[in-house]
Amino acid sequence: MPSDQNEFRDGLSGEERLIARYFKPLATDPHAFGLGDDAAALTPPAGCDLILTTDGVIADVHFLLGDPPQSIARKALRMNLSDLAAKGATPAGFLLSIALPANTPESWIAAFAEGLGQDIGHYGCPLLGGDTDRTPGPLSVSITAFGTVPHGAMVRRATAKLGDVIAVTGTIGDAALGVLIRRDADLAKRWRLSRAASDHLRERYLLPQPRNALAEALRAHASAAMDVSDGLAGDLAKLCRASALAATVDVGAVPLSDAARAALSADAKLIERILTGGDDYEIVLTLPAARFDALRAAAEHAGVPLARIGEVTGGQGVRFLREGKVLSFAQPSYSHF
Amino acid sequence: MPSDQNEFRDGLSGEERLIARYFKPLATDPHAFGLGDDAAALTPPAGCDLILTTDGVIADVHFLLGDPPQSIARKALRMNLSDLAAKGATPAGFLLSIALPANTPESWIAAFAEGLGQDIGHYGCPLLGGDTDRTPGPLSVSITAFGTVPHGAMVRRATAKLGDVIAVTGTIGDAALGVLIRRDADLAKRWRLSRAASDHLRERYLLPQPRNALAEALRAHASAAMDVSDGLAGDLAKLCRASALAATVDVGAVPLSDAARAALSADAKLIERILTGGDDYEIVLTLPAARFDALRAAAEHAGVPLARIGEVTGGQGVRFLREGKVLSFAQPSYSHF
Repeated sequence: MPSDQNEFRDGLSGEERLIARYFKPLATDPHAFGLGDDAAALTPPAGCDLILTTDGVIADVHFLLGDPPQSIARKALRMNLSDLAAKGATPAGFLLSIALPANTPESWIAAFAEGLGQDIGHYGCPLLGGDTDRTPGPLSVSITAFGTVPHGAMVRRATAKLGDVIAVTGTIGDAALGVLIRRDADLAKRWRLSRAASDHLRERYLLPQPRNALAEALRAHASAAMDVSDGLAGDLAKLCRASALAATVDVGAVPLSDAARAALSADAKLIERILTGGDDYEIVLTLPAARFDALRAAAEHAGVPLARIGEVTGGQGVRFLREGKVLSFAQPSYSHF
Repeated sequence: MPSDQNEFRDGLSGEERLIARYFKPLATDPHAFGLGDDAAALTPPAGCDLILTTDGVIADVHFLLGDPPQSIARKALRMNLSDLAAKGATPAGFLLSIALPANTPESWIAAFAEGLGQDIGHYGCPLLGGDTDRTPGPLSVSITAFGTVPHGAMVRRATAKLGDVIAVTGTIGDAALGVLIRRDADLAKRWRLSRAASDHLRERYLLPQPRNALAEALRAHASAAMDVSDGLAGDLAKLCRASALAATVDVGAVPLSDAARAALSADAKLIERILTGGDDYEIVLTLPAARFDALRAAAEHAGVPLARIGEVTGGQGVRFLREGKVLSFAQPSYSHF
């Protein structure tokens, strides 16, 4: 959409036209001013803190250009919603920055906006504003999301207590196996996975299920929490470092999907990938043992599976115990660096 | 900084190391949690709205990799500060997303962080959090900035009134001429510019001077405002469209620096570039004629030059009048699209 004479006639640039056609219809919240201003205005509820988080995806690093644009949009938003969930925050809105190569088909943008619209509705997280640019590089999407918590109630990483139990939502490792299958379709055969199992793992990579339904219960019960996006081992290690404590995890208690169990029974070495791979978008949390049953009941009520996997100890580091022996990993955390 | 065995020993990834060394020292605000959590928490003052804006820069589109990294950092932050200023908002903090090619020298990052630190202090706008990624594409920086205004007091684009006068801060067109000189050093000779004049224009491109000192006075007096980042002609046209009104501008009243005047006297055709080029980071605003003197006095007090350049009329579009004749432009607004 280069500048041309038509722009002169109606005064709209290519960028404004794109925004008007695909993103303005998503920005129905009055705070967004129809994307027609330099900025959005958010009125936080009285007595609330605003929780701020930003995360993004880059083509060929975090997704493939052949992926459905709807999923790319939804995953980019859900990565941020997952951070809000882990902090106990209620989504309040987001800003979208998108950098588009010149050859991006308009149909791609339309499908991207469609996916975004689905999740805006589903999670009640309105589009408030953003920034659109051309890039000579890969397509990239950066989202900054906002949530609210009662003043001082953000669930932090640094506040785990000695003797707390450690729990995790959902299942761990699915997305990390899913991305392997995406790269090498033969793996599903080698792991003797059913079509349904293979699809489950791929889908868990493409479309995370952030645990926003658990946010309020986390505020009520958790001593510390974070979202699991760079692998359980690495992320729990971050939580422990922030809290100046250590952890012991019972590998047998880490919740796995049937599909991940099937893959693991075909190749026992996958346990490292499961525990250290990224993109789970589950929540790892700590809480006093006496509160675990109450949190699990609240989680059940919210439709979120919750498993107790270990405990917070003194010292440094995270030990993963399998049948009494410490597992060691070649690479403890997924990193794009 | 690929993952290696050293990472395993101390448990820190390359990304964490980079953040700890260069960005954590900038995140001294308690709301940033030392960049050691999934999110930041902002407690807005009671009765205030939070103003949200996001803008970014991409290498080879908005800056050159040979530019001083300090300036790139400061410009990326100042682009956002300029949006806050135009909305009448007081800076409250920002999130930084940075995507780095694998071959980025650590010295580049150190200098970038140094520049950022200077402006964090100067504008009282703390680093609250962010996101760091590797990219196979060009280095890019995206900033989301937050400001505060009393509830409902954001100065909007859509609220200009028929008969208002139009004013603009500072001088217009310097950066647009500066970027031409950067691309073709011979131009400075052809325009017969002194070294000081040429340096002034380049510097105006490299390092905008956002008008945050004027924010409070804008809230008190302006009916509408926006920052001039895509050229005076195009941006004023946006403000008029948003307000469903038109404007007439006296080209002779548009404030120019001595350097821009010198260039213009060498090449009269540069008037189009001056009025339509981007990167001014000044503020264009409307207000009742009866308030102009009060705003100019407040602006003088804040050290911000302010010039009356035209008035809001009925109809559509923006007319630039020079000696009674309407100027027409080949391309009315700068756009990367």
